[in-house]
Amino acid sequence: MKLTGPFKQVVTLANLPLRGKLSDDQLEIIAEGGILTDQDKILKVGNYKALKSEHPEAETEDIIGEQVAIPAFVDSHTHICFGGNRANDFAMRNAGKSYLEIAESGGGIWSSVQHTRKATEEELLKTLLARIDFLLALGITTIEIKSGYGLDVENELKMLRIIKKAQESTRVTLVPTCLSAHLKPRDFEESNQEYLQYILTEILPKVKEEDLAKRVDIFIEKSAFQPEESKNFLLKAKDLGFDITVHADQFTPGSSRIAVEVGAKSADHLEATIDEDIEFLAQSETVATALPGASLGLGEKFTPARKLLDAGAIVAIASDWNPGSAPMGNLITQASILATFEKLTTAEVLAGITFRSAFALGLENRGKLEAGFKADYITFKTDNFQNILYHQGSLKCEHIYIGGVQI
Amino acid sequence: MKLTGPFKQVVTLANLPLRGKLSDDQLEIIAEGGILTDQDKILKVGNYKALKSEHPEAETEDIIGEQVAIPAFVDSHTHICFGGNRANDFAMRNAGKSYLEIAESGGGIWSSVQHTRKATEEELLKTLLARIDFLLALGITTIEIKSGYGLDVENELKMLRIIKKAQESTRVTLVPTCLSAHLKPRDFEESNQEYLQYILTEILPKVKEEDLAKRVDIFIEKSAFQPEESKNFLLKAKDLGFDITVHADQFTPGSSRIAVEVGAKSADHLEATIDEDIEFLAQSETVATALPGASLGLGEKFTPARKLLDAGAIVAIASDWNPGSAPMGNLITQASILATFEKLTTAEVLAGITFRSAFALGLENRGKLEAGFKADYITFKTDNFQNILYHQGSLKCEHIYIGGVQI
Ligand SMILES: [Zn+2]
Ligand SMILES: [Zn+2]
Repeated sequence: MKLTGPFKQVVTLANLPLRGKLSDDQLEIIAEGGILTDQDKILKVGNYKALKSEHPEAETEDIIGEQVAIPAFVDSHTHICFGGNRANDFAMRNAGKSYLEIAESGGGIWSSVQHTRKATEEELLKTLLARIDFLLALGITTIEIKSGYGLDVENELKMLRIIKKAQESTRVTLVPTCLSAHLKPRDFEESNQEYLQYILTEILPKVKEEDLAKRVDIFIEKSAFQPEESKNFLLKAKDLGFDITVHADQFTPGSSRIAVEVGAKSADHLEATIDEDIEFLAQSETVATALPGASLGLGEKFTPARKLLDAGAIVAIASDWNPGSAPMGNLITQASILATFEKLTTAEVLAGITFRSAFALGLENRGKLEAGFKADYITFKTDNFQNILYHQGSLKCEHIYIGGVQI
Repeated sequence: MKLTGPFKQVVTLANLPLRGKLSDDQLEIIAEGGILTDQDKILKVGNYKALKSEHPEAETEDIIGEQVAIPAFVDSHTHICFGGNRANDFAMRNAGKSYLEIAESGGGIWSSVQHTRKATEEELLKTLLARIDFLLALGITTIEIKSGYGLDVENELKMLRIIKKAQESTRVTLVPTCLSAHLKPRDFEESNQEYLQYILTEILPKVKEEDLAKRVDIFIEKSAFQPEESKNFLLKAKDLGFDITVHADQFTPGSSRIAVEVGAKSADHLEATIDEDIEFLAQSETVATALPGASLGLGEKFTPARKLLDAGAIVAIASDWNPGSAPMGNLITQASILATFEKLTTAEVLAGITFRSAFALGLENRGKLEAGFKADYITFKTDNFQNILYHQGSLKCEHIYIGGVQI
């Protein structure tokens, strides 16, 4: 049993609902708080002195100076396992070049596929671990990571095995997702449908066999996979026992509806979602994930997070860190910028990067400081939790605890 | 004489024009480059080996690993001398509260004025120096800093003296600006015009006497000072020998025109500038300064930097770091986000945060790596200069040289 504190404030996020809008008055802020943990779980959160006298047997870990503690963050959508770099795509796009011009000059997703296929496992593992460390330093202790730059049996499995390998050397929880349906690769000569069939028969059984991922994703978009073929694919992947998540409505509306229909854990992007489909999402258990990093990377509109929350949806916020459209990776900067454009309360943003994004990953006892929850929490050297979002990423996380142990 | 290198690339920004649009092809990129300095000036930039054999007498400072060198950045618009904190304003605004509700609950500029007046000189100096260090770590070695949270003789002079004091303990160049015309303070009982007269007769003569600032700024906006009274004020300040800069067209168009008419060094903000006034600015020597930090802090539209560049204006980009509307302070993140939304080339962004922003401050031999320029330059641990903006602030600056000396 261990007691950490005293903290100027502990923001527990306890008692907040899974869905819908939140007011900052709903936030539980414990002044002079302490966090009592047992093994890797939260036992109790409350006044530090009271906890100390109630539990004299607890080992204590003193906090020096004014610090605020909050649940560690959860990034539920990333593509951080990749080779190469697409800085030239970024520069060309900002110089006004079209998607086609960029692809013709050797950019686009296909460029990342080529670099990822060419890269050695050592290189991929090293850069992946560096990106995990970058996210960890922001206070993120749970990270979803997608395949999708391999696009054939050999290389998709290579990616997923590297993610599994990375898990052996980090205490951050990594949640792998098979995104072989990112795009039909240029060297697959048959149709989209045949490529999806290839994933179902050649890739997913091996993913299952080696227990490399429990989740399957697809990019439904005019330039990638079409609605009907995607729906068939997802239903079959579900039959194979996979959880589903979807890249939906990024540029074209309609695919979030499919995500809901197949019972996806989450529909991510949603920049182009129409009002009717916002209502449809809000009636479902499918988490609506905003990816402001893509809006900031491309200079495009934001996910209508305000409307989604008002309609009662479960809204998460994730970084979408990837080498093409979202190269920043700083989820805190992104989430706090989404807050200013979409007018989200502090509670809504914090919920979106903690227990709501954890729910999208099927991790339900994570993202709140409540009895029974995993003791992943972080501290900031400040006297007021509002400063975390206020500085839009410029206030650095001070201490990080994973499963109750400081790293 | 000192030779630093070899650098994988040296981006000199040499030969780029002061005004108008830029293509990335116009960038001079010297591969395996070296920088030869004498005292605090650039002597020559070129191939490292060639420079070494031409100047065997030069002391050498070897660069380890792959690094890219570029001119240090110039932030030409900040308000980083202040007391207090406005995290609650930020949270309330995002929660949908109006300007008036925020002011009534104790927020707004007036809150910063009260905290700044109350703060001791030691406190103000300490937090100012911490913010200067934050900007320096981003590679910014020239920083403009405004008064404007004192708003009476005593406190405006207090602020400017603290900025002068800060200059004694940093090698960063600080450029102070008198912004007593930020807002008529609540405790000044007469009219706006009388307050502006008070600045002219009570504050500016003392600023001149103590040589505390050479620049005068005003916030022209419905909620602050009106166009005609502002123009009269600026003409008189100019007569007193001050350079002029203006907070123009942030929410209401019209004031950038006044900036041009009075021959201001720069007109800053310009989010609301109409097309006709963009043309007017483009015909002038007045720098048009985009402040994306305010757009990101408020969730409002961006300065039309693309249109301004196309029209031929001199476009700078600055952070506007202040406790109310722009609390992030990360100019690199802000400038690279402006690039994605406004579609600015890498060259345009780099010019906007180097020699073009230096020009707005009247510092003409700064922001390029060219013979005779101040040897302020920075390095990034990367093989390609495009990565600096691509990561939108996540790639940290490695080494910083001010006047040829590494700090
Ligand atoms: Zn994605
Ligand atoms: Zn300003």
